[in-house]
Amino acid sequence: MAGATKTYLDLIQECDGFPFPDQKNYARITSQLYQFRLKKVWRGDDDESDRGSANPDSYVTVGWMLASVVDQVPWTDKFRVDHGAQTVSIPWPTEGPGSALEHGSFESQAILEQLQLARKLDRVPILRKWRNESYRILGLSDGREVRMERAGSAVFGINTVGVHVLGFSRIEGLKESEDNLRLWIPRRSPTKQTYPNMLDNTIGGGMTAEEDAVGCLVREAYEEASLPPDYVKAHARAAGAISYFLVRDERAGGPEEVGLLQPSTQILYDLELKAGVVPKPSDGEVAEFLLWTPAQTIAGLKEGRFKPNSSLAWIDFLIRHGYVTAQNEPDYLELVSRLHRRLHF
Amino acid sequence: MAGATKTYLDLIQECDGFPFPDQKNYARITSQLYQFRLKKVWRGDDDESDRGSANPDSYVTVGWMLASVVDQVPWTDKFRVDHGAQTVSIPWPTEGPGSALEHGSFESQAILEQLQLARKLDRVPILRKWRNESYRILGLSDGREVRMERAGSAVFGINTVGVHVLGFSRIEGLKESEDNLRLWIPRRSPTKQTYPNMLDNTIGGGMTAEEDAVGCLVREAYEEASLPPDYVKAHARAAGAISYFLVRDERAGGPEEVGLLQPSTQILYDLELKAGVVPKPSDGEVAEFLLWTPAQTIAGLKEGRFKPNSSLAWIDFLIRHGYVTAQNEPDYLELVSRLHRRLHF
Repeated sequence: MAGATKTYLDLIQECDGFPFPDQKNYARITSQLYQFRLKKVWRGDDDESDRGSANPDSYVTVGWMLASVVDQVPWTDKFRVDHGAQTVSIPWPTEGPGSALEHGSFESQAILEQLQLARKLDRVPILRKWRNESYRILGLSDGREVRMERAGSAVFGINTVGVHVLGFSRIEGLKESEDNLRLWIPRRSPTKQTYPNMLDNTIGGGMTAEEDAVGCLVREAYEEASLPPDYVKAHARAAGAISYFLVRDERAGGPEEVGLLQPSTQILYDLELKAGVVPKPSDGEVAEFLLWTPAQTIAGLKEGRFKPNSSLAWIDFLIRHGYVTAQNEPDYLELVSRLHRRLHF
Repeated sequence: MAGATKTYLDLIQECDGFPFPDQKNYARITSQLYQFRLKKVWRGDDDESDRGSANPDSYVTVGWMLASVVDQVPWTDKFRVDHGAQTVSIPWPTEGPGSALEHGSFESQAILEQLQLARKLDRVPILRKWRNESYRILGLSDGREVRMERAGSAVFGINTVGVHVLGFSRIEGLKESEDNLRLWIPRRSPTKQTYPNMLDNTIGGGMTAEEDAVGCLVREAYEEASLPPDYVKAHARAAGAISYFLVRDERAGGPEEVGLLQPSTQILYDLELKAGVVPKPSDGEVAEFLLWTPAQTIAGLKEGRFKPNSSLAWIDFLIRHGYVTAQNEPDYLELVSRLHRRLHF
């Protein structure tokens, strides 16, 4: 990697490669995709007329699917695939569920059966990585909860939420003129399936349907860095979120998964590790924790040594803490907005 | 205002009211606008073929204009107005400037003459508020600098950059369990032309073409809050930016300016005012400075008492400092991305 220099915008583009609606290639690229749609809203009594309806206005898009993946999936009769409109939808049944909660369960069950069937027939390679973890589908405004097995999120291209923790310490005994901030940066295990050996956020993981952001944070901090739950709860500070629309490359899961679409949102926490609190690898996913100055971290980012979405979390940290500024970074305004992409669902 | 309760998303929507490209009303609204365009890039020698060209691919949009404003302006021959394509462009002359710098000067001069003429004929009401301040036009990628009189920015609907400072103090002598953070919040003068009596960011102002973000910050901190430049330079910490696409309402400048388009970016700085450092009104624009707890500030926001774009700057501050979180704010993910709208120019 020596000599390779990436800009912050290059790093963002690697993680947020899906085009924007005002860009030239947007129409061409989206014309090849299928929209995964759920019924927009459960309205109770006045909902009867909508049962089984195919009216596009009564649906909301919650994911983007590759046409090649739509071809792989052995669709069950709970789904309606429209090759003309390029949509994959779950209509509500003409009889059955009568509340928002029941509708959410009906849709969750339909998705689970569909993914289990595709997995059993081994039709969709990424489903070999079945996780037994449920994620919530975002973009529904009526409060009903629809769940999807984690391994299916890249199949349907739904927006998934995770938590990224940026850990730091303050070094005592330095001169006034010296910067006392140090960042805790793990190197991923060389045997890890995705992004082996790359540098990472201090702690990170996906938020399951059963937990909230703090629950996820506390669990991951213990699993990945052996940090005590009470300490983490007392010292983690909410610090915003990053969002991006990832198009998977080889490093994310091998050649069979290239091109899968993964819009994602990562909720950020800053976590100061005070004297005597040190992260330790525990679940075998981390090879070692480095304690780097901001300047070392910036150099590592520019050399492309960080996992793509972790690059974004650290860039956001460096912006929030005044290291990357409008004075020293020509793309400042563009990269601040690119770190917070508005996802449509 | 008693009893009125706005959500954070309501406050963002007031300041960021222009539709997004994937929304239904986007096509209808933009079909009524004109795009203000400059030549995309100065390429030196191979540029000759492009002189005087009307090829749309060689232009970049840097602003949005209302059709009613396009009708008001007495266009000079430096501009080309195409009512079919709904564009207002400045083509480069068939002879003359030969470098990026000269091209920038040529365009700046054309804009200045145009605005001076419109002002002299009193054709565009907002130009009565001529400021004698130049702003840089954003969205040009070749490094040439094109300037525009500040009062013209809402005429051409260009993206303008400002600086917002969020000032705070830490109160000493409180119990461990008490929150020691206090925010410095000015109330605007009751005689101010725009948003009288409303609450504001601690310090804020537009960045002129002659200054950079820190220069703007230091100047405004002295003008608006009597804060010493050396103190501000030493203690201000860069903290990101907010961006939004404002559609002006009555409060921004009276009935004649309703509907004007003002995409904007505000570079943010946090500024801790340590013991003995207190902001004082100096230029008559601020009636008083309040020192509020985060809870008082949140209540003031929800009552709609803050100037619209200052609401956004304080919401971002409350997010960065862990007061508004994924746990206590249901719209958290949406509002984080809405605070950082990607502007096309």
